[in-house]
Amino acid sequence: MTTVSPEAVRAQGGTTEAEVRDVARRAKVASRALATANRMTKDAALRAVADALVAAADEIVTANAQDLDRGRAGGMSDGLLDRLALTPDRIGRIADALRDVAGLPDPVGEVVRGQTLPNGLRLRQVRVPMGVVGMIYEARPNVTVDAAGLALKSGNAVILRGGSAAAASNAVIVSVMRDALDASGLPADLVQSIDAYGRAGGVALMRARGLVDVLIPRGGADLIQTVVRESLVPVIETGVGNVHVYVDATADVAMAVAIVMNAKTQRVGVCNAAETLLVHEDAAPEFLPAALAALADAGVVLHGDPAAMSFAPAGADVVPATDEDWATEYLALELGVRVVPSLDAAIEHIRTWSSGHTEAIVTRDIAAADRFVAEVDSAAVMVNASTRFTDGGELGLGAEIGISTQKLHARGPMGLTELTTTKWVVTGDGHIKP
Amino acid sequence: MTTVSPEAVRAQGGTTEAEVRDVARRAKVASRALATANRMTKDAALRAVADALVAAADEIVTANAQDLDRGRAGGMSDGLLDRLALTPDRIGRIADALRDVAGLPDPVGEVVRGQTLPNGLRLRQVRVPMGVVGMIYEARPNVTVDAAGLALKSGNAVILRGGSAAAASNAVIVSVMRDALDASGLPADLVQSIDAYGRAGGVALMRARGLVDVLIPRGGADLIQTVVRESLVPVIETGVGNVHVYVDATADVAMAVAIVMNAKTQRVGVCNAAETLLVHEDAAPEFLPAALAALADAGVVLHGDPAAMSFAPAGADVVPATDEDWATEYLALELGVRVVPSLDAAIEHIRTWSSGHTEAIVTRDIAAADRFVAEVDSAAVMVNASTRFTDGGELGLGAEIGISTQKLHARGPMGLTELTTTKWVVTGDGHIKP
Repeated sequence: MTTVSPEAVRAQGGTTEAEVRDVARRAKVASRALATANRMTKDAALRAVADALVAAADEIVTANAQDLDRGRAGGMSDGLLDRLALTPDRIGRIADALRDVAGLPDPVGEVVRGQTLPNGLRLRQVRVPMGVVGMIYEARPNVTVDAAGLALKSGNAVILRGGSAAAASNAVIVSVMRDALDASGLPADLVQSIDAYGRAGGVALMRARGLVDVLIPRGGADLIQTVVRESLVPVIETGVGNVHVYVDATADVAMAVAIVMNAKTQRVGVCNAAETLLVHEDAAPEFLPAALAALADAGVVLHGDPAAMSFAPAGADVVPATDEDWATEYLALELGVRVVPSLDAAIEHIRTWSSGHTEAIVTRDIAAADRFVAEVDSAAVMVNASTRFTDGGELGLGAEIGISTQKLHARGPMGLTELTTTKWVVTGDGHIKP
Repeated sequence: MTTVSPEAVRAQGGTTEAEVRDVARRAKVASRALATANRMTKDAALRAVADALVAAADEIVTANAQDLDRGRAGGMSDGLLDRLALTPDRIGRIADALRDVAGLPDPVGEVVRGQTLPNGLRLRQVRVPMGVVGMIYEARPNVTVDAAGLALKSGNAVILRGGSAAAASNAVIVSVMRDALDASGLPADLVQSIDAYGRAGGVALMRARGLVDVLIPRGGADLIQTVVRESLVPVIETGVGNVHVYVDATADVAMAVAIVMNAKTQRVGVCNAAETLLVHEDAAPEFLPAALAALADAGVVLHGDPAAMSFAPAGADVVPATDEDWATEYLALELGVRVVPSLDAAIEHIRTWSSGHTEAIVTRDIAAADRFVAEVDSAAVMVNASTRFTDGGELGLGAEIGISTQKLHARGPMGLTELTTTKWVVTGDGHIKP
């Protein structure tokens, strides 16, 4: 089974917008078959897709090599090339992640609320699939499989718009997944790619209101802001993490150093890594020399305010912080450091600069912890724990399709449940409104 | 306490956009005080607002008389004038509704999910207020109070943009509510109106992304579509109801007639009233003559397909239906009627024309009911009950701020819970990610 090429359709006089709307209509039709499929059917299809990807590993690696060659020729950084690269081992792990999703409970059919009203009407609010989920994302080809797997398990069709840097890899992966679905007796159109339509395809997807039920952008801040601004389809904003760790006056110094080091250096370039360290002035004299020395040893460039810089060890890579530093998600071995006179000042700094992803407090003071939790308005608030735990896998959701930084629908890591909506089912025996 | 007039601010060189952003900033600051207020404080303030509205009834009625005069001079219909009119009795009922909201459970603080992870991290997903809710609505001044009450109870500040037809009434109502909040020790800026800024104010509100957390339009289809199209703030789409009743082959005829009559005629002009009647061809010969006679007796104009028209009683007001009829939300004593060959054809008609609000099936057949419930993709699906039950009050939510016809965040009647979001609170004792 192959998709008709955009070129072929265009030759018949179609426009990109009309073609993408046709893709979305086919997705909607396919989604209806899946919405009423039971869990056994869905899990079997997910396992079949996993097996098919492993069986097609050579073909996928060959296509991926084209993307990598193109990337190298275009001057892509080593970090991005690594994210783009697929090996048989990585394909095996991507397939295992699909099998893990097959093992998760099915969110569809869960009765969220239910009661019998005084008039005898029986109410159930039941979890049902969204319908058609659009994903717009950047280079990583594993997202192609992850997104398709989570969408299928939650009963949705998915329309994928991946980055052009991974176009050859994604084309093969999507083709393999579609064939496996078809062989499983589910519609291949549950998984469709619009990569071949380029940027215009992405724009058309954002305009397909009524055909696409939700759009999830996943990538850098520019991509996400563009989608938020342009889309007529409801969007879930994900991922930008200007994350803070606040070390309170009463913090255990060793614990605080360990948490800051973990939050900044355990993995750089992820949205739940810390970008600014705030330190209560009473904690600074003991905590900051130890923390800044450890950070400097780990190669972290420190952007400090004057008070913080006064505690930096000799020879540390320290530069004066500006407001731009407080606003920056470095995604690198760099950290803003600021000494604050109070918990209130720390909360005010976070209110001013945070992207609402994750903030942590390190403290021994119950009142300070309670106020921080209550007054910091972020998707996740950590007490005496590293910010790196804001992750669907870590928080027990099983898998995640992204981390929402908006308040509508989903906030924080989004798993299967967040890809569903609900429906009220009301059963009577001739009930009319008096 | 009075609001600074837009004219005064403009004289200082401000623009509408900047001024509305200032309104939103003040709302955000005020919302922080409310987010951590306990239920007793909020309920006391709601009761104080209710008392203040009753005490100011004369002042409100006087202002309302100006709106009514302007409406009459402008040729406003009797129906709209009735919706606009306030009397001491109506103000008393609006105040009672506020007291009812005070009696509802507080959604804020509810632990939605929680567990302790294998590593000892303690997780809680806690319900918290959205922050700042924007309402854009049309003439009915009771919405001004309802929206403010539901927003306050759920811990949110509200920014109101009411219809110009109710401007004088709303100005007095908002002023009374602000004074009562101030006297209760809560910030008056929890309730602000931007009516004085006119259309430009509404546009500025739609662009206040990052300051306003959610925008809820409530009114006609044009208003809602404009907000959906223009807003950069996340929107919850409400209210348009192209609602269907399907009478299955096995329906009890008397039950079906009663449900159709109730769904169409019990109250006209509301979003949960029926607009199209679909009838299985096997039920038509017995059901339609009875139903169409009853509908015609009630003054309902029937827009029928040829098969349906063949069953109309002599002298009934019957016109041939067109595709436009299937698409129309009449909000009047008019009804589309179509005979279909099967349940599948009924579902297909609904998929094509429904706005996804509410649909009902009347049947004695379990399999038909189950398929209708599973395959009709609407916010509410009724089995042997009138569509008029899709209402926050009827469904036990206590009150509603609107009925969502989108799938993101809220679907169907929105009560207090739907005005909240959640926050992950993660507590450790020095946990770092290995």
